[in-house]
Amino acid sequence: MINKFCKKPLWEVSQTLSAVAGGAKPAETVIKNAKLINVCTREIQDNIDVAIAEGRIALVGDASHCIGETTNVIDANGSYIAPGFLDGHIHVESSMLTAGEYAKAVVPHGTTGIYMDPHEICNVLGLDGVKCMLEDAGRTPLKAMLTTPSCVPAVPGFEDTGAFIGPEEVAETMTWDECVGLGEMMNFPGILGSTDHAHGITGATLQAGKIVTGHYSLPETGQGLNAYIASGVRCCHESTREEDALAKMRLGMYALLREGSAWHDLKEVSKAITNHEVDSRFACLISDDTHPHTLIENGHLDHIVKRAIEEGIDPVTAIQMVTINCAQCFQMDHDFGSITPGKCADIVFLSDLEKVTVSKVMIDGDVVAENNQMLEEFAPYTYPDWATHSIHLKEEITENSFKIKARDVSAKEALVHAIEVIPARVGSYDRHVKLPVVNGYVESDVTQDVLKTAVFERHHETGNVGYGFVKGFGINKGALASTVAHDAHNLLVLGTNDADMALAANTLVESGGGMVAVADGKVLGHVPLPIAGLMNDLPVQEMSKLVEGLENAWAEIGCNMPSPFMTMALIALACLPELRLTDKGLVDCTTFQFTDLFIKG
Amino acid sequence: MINKFCKKPLWEVSQTLSAVAGGAKPAETVIKNAKLINVCTREIQDNIDVAIAEGRIALVGDASHCIGETTNVIDANGSYIAPGFLDGHIHVESSMLTAGEYAKAVVPHGTTGIYMDPHEICNVLGLDGVKCMLEDAGRTPLKAMLTTPSCVPAVPGFEDTGAFIGPEEVAETMTWDECVGLGEMMNFPGILGSTDHAHGITGATLQAGKIVTGHYSLPETGQGLNAYIASGVRCCHESTREEDALAKMRLGMYALLREGSAWHDLKEVSKAITNHEVDSRFACLISDDTHPHTLIENGHLDHIVKRAIEEGIDPVTAIQMVTINCAQCFQMDHDFGSITPGKCADIVFLSDLEKVTVSKVMIDGDVVAENNQMLEEFAPYTYPDWATHSIHLKEEITENSFKIKARDVSAKEALVHAIEVIPARVGSYDRHVKLPVVNGYVESDVTQDVLKTAVFERHHETGNVGYGFVKGFGINKGALASTVAHDAHNLLVLGTNDADMALAANTLVESGGGMVAVADGKVLGHVPLPIAGLMNDLPVQEMSKLVEGLENAWAEIGCNMPSPFMTMALIALACLPELRLTDKGLVDCTTFQFTDLFIKG
Repeated sequence: MINKFCKKPLWEVSQTLSAVAGGAKPAETVIKNAKLINVCTREIQDNIDVAIAEGRIALVGDASHCIGETTNVIDANGSYIAPGFLDGHIHVESSMLTAGEYAKAVVPHGTTGIYMDPHEICNVLGLDGVKCMLEDAGRTPLKAMLTTPSCVPAVPGFEDTGAFIGPEEVAETMTWDECVGLGEMMNFPGILGSTDHAHGITGATLQAGKIVTGHYSLPETGQGLNAYIASGVRCCHESTREEDALAKMRLGMYALLREGSAWHDLKEVSKAITNHEVDSRFACLISDDTHPHTLIENGHLDHIVKRAIEEGIDPVTAIQMVTINCAQCFQMDHDFGSITPGKCADIVFLSDLEKVTVSKVMIDGDVVAENNQMLEEFAPYTYPDWATHSIHLKEEITENSFKIKARDVSAKEALVHAIEVIPARVGSYDRHVKLPVVNGYVESDVTQDVLKTAVFERHHETGNVGYGFVKGFGINKGALASTVAHDAHNLLVLGTNDADMALAANTLVESGGGMVAVADGKVLGHVPLPIAGLMNDLPVQEMSKLVEGLENAWAEIGCNMPSPFMTMALIALACLPELRLTDKGLVDCTTFQFTDLFIKG
Repeated sequence: MINKFCKKPLWEVSQTLSAVAGGAKPAETVIKNAKLINVCTREIQDNIDVAIAEGRIALVGDASHCIGETTNVIDANGSYIAPGFLDGHIHVESSMLTAGEYAKAVVPHGTTGIYMDPHEICNVLGLDGVKCMLEDAGRTPLKAMLTTPSCVPAVPGFEDTGAFIGPEEVAETMTWDECVGLGEMMNFPGILGSTDHAHGITGATLQAGKIVTGHYSLPETGQGLNAYIASGVRCCHESTREEDALAKMRLGMYALLREGSAWHDLKEVSKAITNHEVDSRFACLISDDTHPHTLIENGHLDHIVKRAIEEGIDPVTAIQMVTINCAQCFQMDHDFGSITPGKCADIVFLSDLEKVTVSKVMIDGDVVAENNQMLEEFAPYTYPDWATHSIHLKEEITENSFKIKARDVSAKEALVHAIEVIPARVGSYDRHVKLPVVNGYVESDVTQDVLKTAVFERHHETGNVGYGFVKGFGINKGALASTVAHDAHNLLVLGTNDADMALAANTLVESGGGMVAVADGKVLGHVPLPIAGLMNDLPVQEMSKLVEGLENAWAEIGCNMPSPFMTMALIALACLPELRLTDKGLVDCTTFQFTDLFIKG
């Protein structure tokens, strides 16, 4: 596979590299006296120099003869050097940061390449939105490699999204330079059911000679997993148990072991390595979803490698899992993943191996970050108007928009379905609750912890609104709204009263999207996300503060869940059990059928 | 990388595979109750079934539900199954067999794929000859993947070959379906010297996204090796010492550990694995050159794996070296190299693991060999007339063709350079010897073990003849001739007298090439090689007998060297030290200059 993620392709500079290695030309940069984390042989080599020219490595060993008058010599002073860290599966949008700000947040932690699946923006803005993110990322030193979103919409027929991706769209993106594969194929039912649509999407990727990445979240590791892998899916980040990850590796699937902000899988899944004497070449470490707070407090892949070491994985083996293993998974090991001649000079300096303390980061031969700070400046990127004005409602939202007419308007109570959320879990329960009917309308009931909920279609002005009830947040006043509402990212509102719900919704309409908490006619916390209703171009520190403010606001109105807005954002995701609400209505996710809000009494 | 080495590409059959794995369609074939050599995790798994459809693996595990009325069930009875063996570097012509007969000889030994560098036929017949070999191989189940010959001629300017390969020719072959990379880049001086020609050839390969295979035979593992690898060369089979192989793996180069008929490197180079606690993923086992006798007596990769085990490498690790490691080297691990869902059903059954006893071989889901016999029939291939009539001399060869006029025709002796060969070594010495002058012509002198030698250009009727002397074979009568004379494969003749030399030469002219030993006007041993003067379409057993006859003939006239025709075949190879003879004359291979036969007295 050929890619654009280098200063120059090897065939344009190989003559220079050979000349530098042989001493016929001085190197541009020489790193002296390092301890090399050799991910090829799983060794640590002392007293190693690296000679660099044209953004690539010319020589590894003794580079004394490569130093000329013009050579920039970096004395590593015996510190460790490792290949640049690669994240095999990441959604930048989860950080709420733009690609540019995301790069500033993660590169100082040693991340030099990410395989990003921008399926959030794609649900809102389609491939044009994806192109914006690629342009944004393209200005930065971070190598942001596209895996084309495969499941847009996530649950076809049950929700309105801003875009549709089918085999033809996938095939088109496979011609893009930035595209190295297909994003997580969440439609495993389609693969297992041998549908033309699902296999058309994976097939278009395979036919282009690119990599299909997976998402197989069933606990079953027999027929289903085999059927899934047989379609050509090469990796999967959805293992949550030791046996999941082990089964995948045994079946030749790269097990991408996840440690994200919300999903802490490593404790369990690392046992696939530590409890078994296995070749670990099919294991990688990835983040999937990372929030601003996590990036600031813990870091990125440096933190995940450290966590793997804490779980008992040998440090060099753990580093293989974010370097050579990941590069081999994507068949890009000829350009990345090791500190060896010919490869891009993507190098992480570590002052402490066990703690994975990153002191300096080099990409394509340039030092781009040092002491946790990005050094390299790059031009700001302005998202176009259509990307920052992505809320397209048919009608203005008012208090009346939230009225749910009872089936029997003369009754005092109505028996309805309510979605009960579960703290820090992705599932939900389908509960039957009796709610008060006032003037013919069904109302929220904080005594039962049940809130009125609405999902407004916001992409194509269809006017679709889905109504339902949610239980379990502990909210006792006010309302909440979010345009981060997986995966269609329609406008989701829930609350105790119609006035606050309208205020919450309209606050987001004004800010072009985001997440908000209001009470008693006042905005308590607000994270504006004007870019596609998903991202903001503020730096990570400021975003982290805004999110903290929002969490405090949630607490103020009664919710003590960790990151409750994450749990809220899944209310509309109709591929998760048991009951969900989309702009098209209430979905029974066990039978995959729409269901009436009212239960016959 | 996409390739044609499968029944059908995965994207055409993935729906069927998923259906079979899920039990919705019956498998075509199910292997039951095997011990799986899992090369992904380096484990042995008991009681494993494999379900197969469309030539690919649908499921690995319990396949009971995949068996229908039409399913062919193969009971493995607890024997081992391993992925089909892959030879990462092989010259089919060394076996003197056609590609078809070669396939019959190696497939029963578990070899399902070879990365072949047909640089012998290419020197004689150019890319048209290569195409013939591909067509021949293409009829067989053996997956014969082309690495385009990179160095034709081997030593430009010093010899006449039948063809020339430059960057443009390489680029053309990179568009061929059968081509997966570049053959051994022997021109390491060109790479180290950063020449346009050498880097143009490697660059054309890299630009096509294909693999550059190497040949770095220097004992130096510092600047030179780095300069070589920096050009993008991905593997090398020329390690002869522990430290060579280790240095290559550390620099991210696949070390192809060789055990050929003539080169027994494993004893030494396997120490790179056994003496160091290294990740062995960058090590492969390969054969390079294998003679008919070796194929019959020892086998092919089965023998080499056994040898690796004898040298102390763990059996499963050794099998990784002919399966997943090789497939990853060529970035073809999505199709080959493991028994996992989606991959081609290339499977070797082993009745004994330590002895690597192959009992059955499956390729693309079909059992093609059993009990050391090829089962599958395939159509015979007839090489075209121009391929079987490749000897094009300007003039008929007679006794007079061998007369070497003395510089001083009146002298009784002449001081000349002689090439001294070294048994079972590729090098030679430049010796100064005094030879008798009779009637003004310099003659052979068996008392000094010095034979007159001539190389006739045989490709383009140029009439070029190079004359010299060779020392060291121990021949006391008769003459020898060969059209296997690396790498230009001109007609090489040496002998004690002109009459026998003419007989030897003309015997080969008549048979369209080959190797012959004559004495006293009689042919003692003759291996006709009518295809390009290099190969014969006889089966391996018959070829082995002919070669044995030739070896006996050599012994009869005084030479007790092992495989002396091999040593003879290197006399014309002007890239080896110290002195060589081509059709253009005597070459000093230390200065790379032509040198006069006569030494000023």
